[in-house]
Amino acid sequence: VPEPHAAPQIAVVIPAGGGGTRLWPRSRQATPKQFLDVVSERTMLQETTDRVRSLVPPERLYVITNARHAGAVRGQLPAVPALNIVGEPEGRDSAPAIGLMAAILEKTLGPDAVMATLPADHVIPSDAHFRAILTASALVAADGYLVTLGIPPTGPDTGFGYIQSGETLRETTDAGVPVYAVQQFREKPQREVAEQYLKDGGYFWNAGMFIASVKTLRDLYKTHLPQMEAGFAQIVAAYGTDEFDAVMRGVFPTLEKVSVDYAIAEKADRVAVIPADIGWNDVGSWQRLAEVLATEGHETENTVIGHHVGVDTHGALIYSPKRLIATIGLDDIIVIDTPDAILICPKSRSEDVKKIVDELKARGRQELL
Amino acid sequence: VPEPHAAPQIAVVIPAGGGGTRLWPRSRQATPKQFLDVVSERTMLQETTDRVRSLVPPERLYVITNARHAGAVRGQLPAVPALNIVGEPEGRDSAPAIGLMAAILEKTLGPDAVMATLPADHVIPSDAHFRAILTASALVAADGYLVTLGIPPTGPDTGFGYIQSGETLRETTDAGVPVYAVQQFREKPQREVAEQYLKDGGYFWNAGMFIASVKTLRDLYKTHLPQMEAGFAQIVAAYGTDEFDAVMRGVFPTLEKVSVDYAIAEKADRVAVIPADIGWNDVGSWQRLAEVLATEGHETENTVIGHHVGVDTHGALIYSPKRLIATIGLDDIIVIDTPDAILICPKSRSEDVKKIVDELKARGRQELL
Repeated sequence: VPEPHAAPQIAVVIPAGGGGTRLWPRSRQATPKQFLDVVSERTMLQETTDRVRSLVPPERLYVITNARHAGAVRGQLPAVPALNIVGEPEGRDSAPAIGLMAAILEKTLGPDAVMATLPADHVIPSDAHFRAILTASALVAADGYLVTLGIPPTGPDTGFGYIQSGETLRETTDAGVPVYAVQQFREKPQREVAEQYLKDGGYFWNAGMFIASVKTLRDLYKTHLPQMEAGFAQIVAAYGTDEFDAVMRGVFPTLEKVSVDYAIAEKADRVAVIPADIGWNDVGSWQRLAEVLATEGHETENTVIGHHVGVDTHGALIYSPKRLIATIGLDDIIVIDTPDAILICPKSRSEDVKKIVDELKARGRQELL
Repeated sequence: VPEPHAAPQIAVVIPAGGGGTRLWPRSRQATPKQFLDVVSERTMLQETTDRVRSLVPPERLYVITNARHAGAVRGQLPAVPALNIVGEPEGRDSAPAIGLMAAILEKTLGPDAVMATLPADHVIPSDAHFRAILTASALVAADGYLVTLGIPPTGPDTGFGYIQSGETLRETTDAGVPVYAVQQFREKPQREVAEQYLKDGGYFWNAGMFIASVKTLRDLYKTHLPQMEAGFAQIVAAYGTDEFDAVMRGVFPTLEKVSVDYAIAEKADRVAVIPADIGWNDVGSWQRLAEVLATEGHETENTVIGHHVGVDTHGALIYSPKRLIATIGLDDIIVIDTPDAILICPKSRSEDVKKIVDELKARGRQELL
């Protein structure tokens, strides 16, 4: 990889379209987790923009979200221009959303801008290191690479896709980490396969964060998803006009529903992965959030947000900002209290929250979803 | 025991002074369990009077309770004359309360009336059989006996005192049960001792229900607690006058704090016990209430009052009239939701609710007690 000429202009695109039932009862259809203050007093969306504030001015922050949440995004990010917040009339998976944003950025910032896609519902404690990696990634992206951030796995997790790294493209960067070519993207594996990945080494979790120049992305879409181009052109032509919402409603739902990983990243030739040891956590369950909130080395203590009295209670995650939760003789229990619903389950069962959500759907309890 | 001449006039005295922390967070200092609808839509106090309605008119129902609860009692029992509701300025255990009521009944109904003392916070499902036993007991009481109702033990419970029965006084009664002399009252035993009682047979739980003529009780007090007589005389003299509350406040707190079991029943010569197989339950813990509420033969099913969705949840007791409780992977769990506090504990730990209450006291959380 040759050294680049100058620091490229970075724009951040934040996909914020998650449905968010995994942190039920806090997350609901109307307020998925990215719009909640589950980790700090800022919402996860706000934390995502806070994290890059020193690198990227609000004018170059873009959000694509479900149209019904666009108002919430504007409310949470008042410094971001309203035009930068794009509402999808319906979810069509990630490829149409990312491709459309690349097409819009081509119009607003030009093809040389580097677009960093950073999901709104992740936690990244090591934010200074993350920014250094982002800056280094932008330089690699400016050379025509689609750069993915690879999370060093902390266990054989079966809930994530994996990235297998190949040859070393650069021994080190300003962030102090190397750049590898991607040998292969791997789907969410079975347990034994994941264990083999960890044994073999050279595998990373795919956190869905990737960085590429607008030109690179546009070329990839024209090559691999050419059928979307006419739709993008119609929408971009209306961008900034009063017709935009109507055109989105007419055109966006006709775009192929497919993921950017499958349709673009896996098919690109020049794909790099940069190891990102940044404490990343997708907060994909209450158990995962408990990992974020627990004080390191004190995992058997109770994590309490709100009010709790415990007798023989250890390793609990308690969220109850209003009412007192009293527990006796319960280890590793999760209690989440909200105005209309309370979840109680052992940490080991927190993935099964979706079964509760399914049951509520089956019972037609729409007001609780 | 000779056959009595005629059915005596029965008055029911209901001690309703319990402090009621054992069903926290539903029971509070301001509303002990006897004033709550924990079992049916009627409060336990109302159920206690409902149970004897066909035997005893409201004019012969008396309640002695903490003075701050007297208003609540009047509200819950509108048919009972206000004069029949006596407020204690402070709790002095059971002997002063029962002795005072006997002295008042001597004035209002005369010495031949039979006084049945029936605590307000017990559950008695077999109410017809209970009334038959009460009627039979009154006949024995009219012969000068202090009659206690003995609950056939269903296990070696260490939370109750035991009554050891002696010689048979009457083979059978109109209620179809015999009458035994009491050989000895036994304090709450150790586990091994309780097991031995069950093995030996002839032991009953002491449920605190006893029946005696006013004359019998008055004589017992004059013999065994003569120092209370002057106090009783002052209070009874003021009964029905505007001075009553003031005299109560001045005199009642000076009476010896002692239990009627210890100071009277254990010292009486003519004490009888009548086996009362009436499904009695003192609802002394959430676990005990769960026993009352569970459908017989379906103890592993969930008992739900209110709203619950469970995944892999069995044998739970859920009380949540407003909010949805969602549980995953929890067996024999108790969840009690109230507007300001939620209790979560396994049934096996429900006795430890008092530790929560103690902790709240230690923290000065008076508003939750």
